[in-house]
Amino acid sequence: MFLSELIPMKDALDILDKNQIIMETEIIDLKNSYLRVLSEEVYSFHDSPPFDKSAMDGYAVIASDTFGASPNAIKKLNIIDQIGAGDFSNKIINSGEAIRIATGAPIPDGADAVLMEEYTITNSKGSSDEYIEIHSQVTPGENVSFQGEDIKSGDLVVKDSTIIRPQEMGIIASAGISNIEVYKIPKVKLIITGNELINPTKKLEKAQIINSNQYVISSMIKSCGVHVDVVSAKDIFEEVKKTLLDSSKDYDLIITTGGTAISKGDVVVDAVDSIGDVLFHGVALRPGKPVGFGIIANTPVFMLSGYPVAAMGQFDALVRNFLFKMQNIEFNPRKEKRRADVKIYSNLGRTDFIRSYADDDKVKAVLSRGSGILRSMIEANSYIIVDENQEGISKDEIVDVVFFESMNWNK
Amino acid sequence: MFLSELIPMKDALDILDKNQIIMETEIIDLKNSYLRVLSEEVYSFHDSPPFDKSAMDGYAVIASDTFGASPNAIKKLNIIDQIGAGDFSNKIINSGEAIRIATGAPIPDGADAVLMEEYTITNSKGSSDEYIEIHSQVTPGENVSFQGEDIKSGDLVVKDSTIIRPQEMGIIASAGISNIEVYKIPKVKLIITGNELINPTKKLEKAQIINSNQYVISSMIKSCGVHVDVVSAKDIFEEVKKTLLDSSKDYDLIITTGGTAISKGDVVVDAVDSIGDVLFHGVALRPGKPVGFGIIANTPVFMLSGYPVAAMGQFDALVRNFLFKMQNIEFNPRKEKRRADVKIYSNLGRTDFIRSYADDDKVKAVLSRGSGILRSMIEANSYIIVDENQEGISKDEIVDVVFFESMNWNK
Repeated sequence: MFLSELIPMKDALDILDKNQIIMETEIIDLKNSYLRVLSEEVYSFHDSPPFDKSAMDGYAVIASDTFGASPNAIKKLNIIDQIGAGDFSNKIINSGEAIRIATGAPIPDGADAVLMEEYTITNSKGSSDEYIEIHSQVTPGENVSFQGEDIKSGDLVVKDSTIIRPQEMGIIASAGISNIEVYKIPKVKLIITGNELINPTKKLEKAQIINSNQYVISSMIKSCGVHVDVVSAKDIFEEVKKTLLDSSKDYDLIITTGGTAISKGDVVVDAVDSIGDVLFHGVALRPGKPVGFGIIANTPVFMLSGYPVAAMGQFDALVRNFLFKMQNIEFNPRKEKRRADVKIYSNLGRTDFIRSYADDDKVKAVLSRGSGILRSMIEANSYIIVDENQEGISKDEIVDVVFFESMNWNK
Repeated sequence: MFLSELIPMKDALDILDKNQIIMETEIIDLKNSYLRVLSEEVYSFHDSPPFDKSAMDGYAVIASDTFGASPNAIKKLNIIDQIGAGDFSNKIINSGEAIRIATGAPIPDGADAVLMEEYTITNSKGSSDEYIEIHSQVTPGENVSFQGEDIKSGDLVVKDSTIIRPQEMGIIASAGISNIEVYKIPKVKLIITGNELINPTKKLEKAQIINSNQYVISSMIKSCGVHVDVVSAKDIFEEVKKTLLDSSKDYDLIITTGGTAISKGDVVVDAVDSIGDVLFHGVALRPGKPVGFGIIANTPVFMLSGYPVAAMGQFDALVRNFLFKMQNIEFNPRKEKRRADVKIYSNLGRTDFIRSYADDDKVKAVLSRGSGILRSMIEANSYIIVDENQEGISKDEIVDVVFFESMNWNK
């Protein structure tokens, strides 16, 4: 089984879609839910605020008592109690009275507004004051957060399949919930193949290549919010086959690098074929044509190139989408319009991921030869994606630019 | 010590700048460096590629041997050897000869180009072929990645103070380096104060508020690439003081929530003042006016509001910048121009962080009363920041919008 005819990128995406797996769910403590994906709808057990409360430090008053107060017409109110956060008062305010109140504390009976501390003359912290002088007026309801104005008991507060940000955690807590159901985090096994690969070293022998994919692809997997374990394998059919088979039992997904092209040492596609199904091998994609996808015992396997930049292109074009969908999240990186600074060549029938650098106004291709050019990935901040139906891009044409940063999970 | 006069936001930022701390550095394995910040310049020990190598699967040839080849003028070359990835050949190619070569393998002596597999007629995988028929020509250097064309030995490959993405990991590995110097990850202690706070529950007593800050603020801290431990404390002066003092010994930074306003139960600012210095308390900022900053035994302390949305505003306005700079990274969230969909009110002399929802074209304020409105943070995807010198925004005015997602570390 080897790369013979290239399929269009959209056909590859269709095959992936048909074989998409979605993770099972689990119940976790809300504390650990940052960036997890909710797999249920969350409804509130409470009104929020749960009672009418003060939105300011100041004095709970009857608004009409303050009408007409100004720096030239100071009014006086008797202080009959004080309420700190977490406290409440059993006293009832009558006309001419006020209760000192902290932000967040319940509005006492009788009061209908809060006069801010700074609009009173008795600006002391002591509890001994018997009255305040006020030089400003408030309207009924002013500086009061009313019960249920944020959320009503029974309200849907967070929808299914939401990535949980700090604010979602806050609203779920306020809803009275401390345990939630989320999609399990996918466990990915990354298998790096290649006899020529060695760990970083100052001294290289002839034909040796430093194994950079163990770093590059594993951190790309992490950037999709996913757990990854990495293992290396020699280009030996039986060794690759055994590693694949073992991994298919313990992992939700397998990603390999190397061994996808056609040469005597390239065994990965043959190994997958021997114990599972290869569903495609070779996509009209640049960089990254020799990319494969298969299934071993229900475990999907992406076969990426050994070349780091080809593997990165393949990952961005095909794998991210799949990893996001495993947690029921659409992969929708941010696209922005930019003016192309130079003419860009591309072939009809092939989807090109052109590494580019975009500023606020224009975008230029980060030129490089070959697919091994990591430097271009460092200089680039984005891709221009040239669709298979497009024959390149003219200078000054307005194009969609996809920013690398927006391709990550934590966005 | 309590909030008396509000200082402008820029003065608060100046004070923070003068008291900015920067983390010490440590040496770590490149494997663990994703999203860490480099604290050294990285130079390459190697040319990359380290030798002239094939960029394609195909045949190493002498380009001039292929000149004139076409589907109507097929030429024949003798295969004298084959080179897999990680191998090399000791044979020298003469005119009329070719060596089968895998992507990434070293170009054999005598050859100056690689003819892609698909331009040959003998499209087999076997090693038994004695010749190939070619129907396409190549130019000298075609499909060859030349030694050092990506990186030259001694080149600076990654600059100091770079957040390490997958591509930086790749280029550092290729440079021959497996251990790098990075800024230590800041350790933050989050102290949640408030007698009224309880953990999420279905049953609330009067005046109780669910402690959502333990979730919201702790995950915001995580979103800055920082480690956080959370503890709760009652609004008791001695308890808060002891917690602050203990934390100042073991943590790089302290963040408190609650106890920053002026009421009998608000003890945090007084506690910081008693064992350290309060450098400001009260910033002309909305939401989030009652925010403080101090230092206890060289450990900076941010004092945030108890109200989640006020605390979130304070965090975004003041704390993120400080946490980023602790790892020597500028906090530069993405700003984009949008057309304001409605008139927005703001006071002169106050910096307003207006929660907003921006689409591709326009932005509208997500309206809410009070600062306790978490729901507005869920509906919003961005801030409109109204500078202290601006008196609101007119309908259809073009404004800068800052997207939440771009305020995170992993962007």
